Amino acid sequence: MKVDGTAYRSIWLDDDGWGVRIIDQTRLPHRFEIVRLETLEDAAHAIRAMLVRGAPLIGATAAYGMCLALREDPSDDAMQRAYDVLLATRPTAVNLRWALDDVTAELRNQPHERRVELAYACAARICDDDVGINEAIGNHGVDLIRATHQRTGQTVNVLTHCNAGWLATVDWGTALSPIYKAHEEDIPVHVWADETRPRNQGASLTAWELGHHGVAHTVIPDNAGGHLMQHGLVDLCITGTDRTSAAGDVCNKIGTYLKALAAQHNGVPFYVALPSPTIDWTIEDGRAIPIEERAGSEVSHIAGKADDGEVVTVQLTPDGSPVANPAFDVTPSGLVTGLITERGVCQASREGLARLFPEHAAG
Amino acid sequence: MKVDGTAYRSIWLDDDGWGVRIIDQTRLPHRFEIVRLETLEDAAHAIRAMLVRGAPLIGATAAYGMCLALREDPSDDAMQRAYDVLLATRPTAVNLRWALDDVTAELRNQPHERRVELAYACAARICDDDVGINEAIGNHGVDLIRATHQRTGQTVNVLTHCNAGWLATVDWGTALSPIYKAHEEDIPVHVWADETRPRNQGASLTAWELGHHGVAHTVIPDNAGGHLMQHGLVDLCITGTDRTSAAGDVCNKIGTYLKALAAQHNGVPFYVALPSPTIDWTIEDGRAIPIEERAGSEVSHIAGKADDGEVVTVQLTPDGSPVANPAFDVTPSGLVTGLITERGVCQASREGLARLFPEHAAG
Repeated sequence: MKVDGTAYRSIWLDDDGWGVRIIDQTRLPHRFEIVRLETLEDAAHAIRAMLVRGAPLIGATAAYGMCLALREDPSDDAMQRAYDVLLATRPTAVNLRWALDDVTAELRNQPHERRVELAYACAARICDDDVGINEAIGNHGVDLIRATHQRTGQTVNVLTHCNAGWLATVDWGTALSPIYKAHEEDIPVHVWADETRPRNQGASLTAWELGHHGVAHTVIPDNAGGHLMQHGLVDLCITGTDRTSAAGDVCNKIGTYLKALAAQHNGVPFYVALPSPTIDWTIEDGRAIPIEERAGSEVSHIAGKADDGEVVTVQLTPDGSPVANPAFDVTPSGLVTGLITERGVCQASREGLARLFPEHAAG
Repeated sequence: MKVDGTAYRSIWLDDDGWGVRIIDQTRLPHRFEIVRLETLEDAAHAIRAMLVRGAPLIGATAAYGMCLALREDPSDDAMQRAYDVLLATRPTAVNLRWALDDVTAELRNQPHERRVELAYACAARICDDDVGINEAIGNHGVDLIRATHQRTGQTVNVLTHCNAGWLATVDWGTALSPIYKAHEEDIPVHVWADETRPRNQGASLTAWELGHHGVAHTVIPDNAGGHLMQHGLVDLCITGTDRTSAAGDVCNKIGTYLKALAAQHNGVPFYVALPSPTIDWTIEDGRAIPIEERAGSEVSHIAGKADDGEVVTVQLTPDGSPVANPAFDVTPSGLVTGLITERGVCQASREGLARLFPEHAAG
């Protein structure tokens, strides 16, 4: 997508053909800084310190991390060491392991002198595959936005939670991909961006990427969405997901469930956009998905831009008040109108998913 | 209630018998500062700049503002001027007008030399009445907490939204009054305090007053409550209200509606604590209650304590991203398990309210 008219991906190869460039997402929305990765440790740090985040982008960065490691030493030992270092950066990120397995499988029986070249080709393919999947999600999802516009003749108001945009993937995003497609088609669309406490990915990342691409949007407190739906100001909700069960229960950023409840109560369609690798075919009931409890400091403290332009962290809660910070919640499939996948839109149910993904339907 | 063992009200007469002391609530939770009001302008400023907030406390401060004005000039003209100045501080606060009307009605036909004494007596009565109403709410509400404890034998987990504690009233609070009563009775109680974006009254005021009184509590992002209810970690919800319709629809801080939806979806009782003057007998359908849209800067910026102890304001959203900030929402009566009033607990319905307040039931 674009930043003030210039097309970007969230990760790309530098002009010299080997250095890797990323956007330092920890500096957003207040600064747009591009960082160059040259070593395994650069890549590991970028993932660990969350310069890059979002499952697909983490995977892509890990793949390029393997490339950078192999440039220095293409031996089996070095490859295994790089694998271990990168895997340890974000232990729960499923895409991270897939990407690493993908690269190592491709290189294992190859001569050392060919490994670097093959690794770069594999990393590029991982990126392109992600872009292809997300663009397909956009092409399917835009049908929903177009249909709403054709029915109402008005600007389509889409509410989203957290950031499932191009910054979380290599390009297009998942939840935001249909919105970018609608924007491309000149369908009038406006996004209500939940700020998404405590890490404020909506206020900082979603608002930033929509704004710089030129998509109309408004940042709202997470508390406001229900009220907006009560007043007919939301036509549909589209969120991403971190993991979806085989029966269509959706695990996503904390607070998603509350919006799904409000959508149902007000007859607003609630869609979840997801690349199929996000589906966990081994879990039926979403309540079996373990929920990460993150550091309380994410709730008690927040970073923002001070008057002098510096980004500073301030404390919000009283000294000594305990804090809880569950990072995700599970929205039961009954509250989900449909799942937008790269193969089309389906019902959030075992049957709906089985029709689109028959190769997994055996369970 | 207590601050580290010392009993306080949120407004009180100084030792000299005429100066008025308040807690500067804009400094909470990071500093506990008591301010002395000596003039009409001091009182007006305290309301206008939100050193005091919460409808009952605003009314009490306005009443004392009349006292301070009359000390300087007890004439009819001065009285009218003070009335106008104070009324203009927060135009939408209903209790403000009631308190001012109450004081002026009491003084109108009285000799000038008696006015100051009568005004102070009236202000003291307004304060004591508020304390009496809130303590009665606590006595009725604690029955619900006690019954839960007797049933489960466990600590009772109460979720609340915004601040409806003693800081919002003269003492006890409304939603928190049953919790303070439970604490007094040694019923084990723990409060989930929604941080309540955008103004964070939960994270700053509710957490502060519970913590300093010694009540167990945990601050959570507004997004977390639904997840906690899904996992059986909330026994009941109690919130306050700014205005309740004659049919039991509840207008309260933005986000209350989302918690009521989650409560219903998970079979968690959802109670609203309210002094009867908060009931608007002229409105049946809560959707007729106008919703204040407040400044976007409350969402885009936030104040907190920096590393050096100074309170600074930082920007959260990208430059140029629009922001919306509806301040309240309306929870339909069907989502409300009961209303906790000073006369007892009733169903959130015309019939329920009419039984407790037959003098208003004619409409």
